[in-house]
Amino acid sequence: MKTVKDYIRTIPDFPHEGIMFRDVTTLFADPRGFRMAIDQLLHPYAGQPIDRVVGLEARGFILGGAIAHQLSLGFVPIRKKGKLPGKTIEQDYQLEYGEAIMEVHDDALQPGERVLLVDDLLATGGTAEAGIKLIERIGASVMGCAFIIDLPELGGRKKLEDMGMNVHILCEFEGA
Amino acid sequence: MKTVKDYIRTIPDFPHEGIMFRDVTTLFADPRGFRMAIDQLLHPYAGQPIDRVVGLEARGFILGGAIAHQLSLGFVPIRKKGKLPGKTIEQDYQLEYGEAIMEVHDDALQPGERVLLVDDLLATGGTAEAGIKLIERIGASVMGCAFIIDLPELGGRKKLEDMGMNVHILCEFEGA
Repeated sequence: MKTVKDYIRTIPDFPHEGIMFRDVTTLFADPRGFRMAIDQLLHPYAGQPIDRVVGLEARGFILGGAIAHQLSLGFVPIRKKGKLPGKTIEQDYQLEYGEAIMEVHDDALQPGERVLLVDDLLATGGTAEAGIKLIERIGASVMGCAFIIDLPELGGRKKLEDMGMNVHILCEFEGA
Repeated sequence: MKTVKDYIRTIPDFPHEGIMFRDVTTLFADPRGFRMAIDQLLHPYAGQPIDRVVGLEARGFILGGAIAHQLSLGFVPIRKKGKLPGKTIEQDYQLEYGEAIMEVHDDALQPGERVLLVDDLLATGGTAEAGIKLIERIGASVMGCAFIIDLPELGGRKKLEDMGMNVHILCEFEGA
């Protein structure tokens, strides 16, 4: 029986030379793979109170839409700067070269809500950290961060756990 | 009882002056609204053969993820140029000013597959037309195009229907 990891393909040298890109589109395209990923992402949260699902642009939208629908919850996107039409709050974060900014609508969550944050891949954790800060600045709390892939050498999991986060990841790949 | 349209808010002057932006994030954030939208998008396709769900970047990913999960099907993204890591085929299309390019992985669909194409909004239909061409160039067929919002003054629905497409849209807004 294939595991979630078996459905993920590796594309060498994308987006630039020396990077082994872990491509989840082959997982998402497979009916059994996609359903297995959603089921396994949710497994530790069975019976736990979740008020809203938040996904990080853009592959986190595919997972977040499916998970929100599965749980009959609403979905909230966290996007790169300039994409959300309403009033937003911003959070900058470090990229390999330079900085970037993530945004969320300032009325997208209510204070006190318990959020499940989802994305496909955890690398340095910079984007996820920005997402957590945005959620917490609204007064909501992150009750779990769920990812399909961890790249342990890049330290994202440790960064989020040092913030006190519950982190749930389905598989690991070596190398950046 | 609120309709899908009632959950959509309008943001004036986004992304630039004179545009009334129809914002579906308030629909997606609401558990009842999101589920109603998914149910209504799928309603005409009950009992019909669908092999794969395709969504257009980026809001189409939220809908497409939920719909693929609901149908226990795989999901395939069509993205702006440069985002997909594998071998792709490209299709250019007209923007208000200039051109843009959408891409799909050339192995993401199999010839003969029946595809449901989803996005949040149909305006001029340029992006959807590019998506349909990409799907058909792989040899798959589009058995339906489902959107939440139509802007009828911009002619997208007519463009797609003139291509022979089945088009299903939940609500209309006047003005561009």
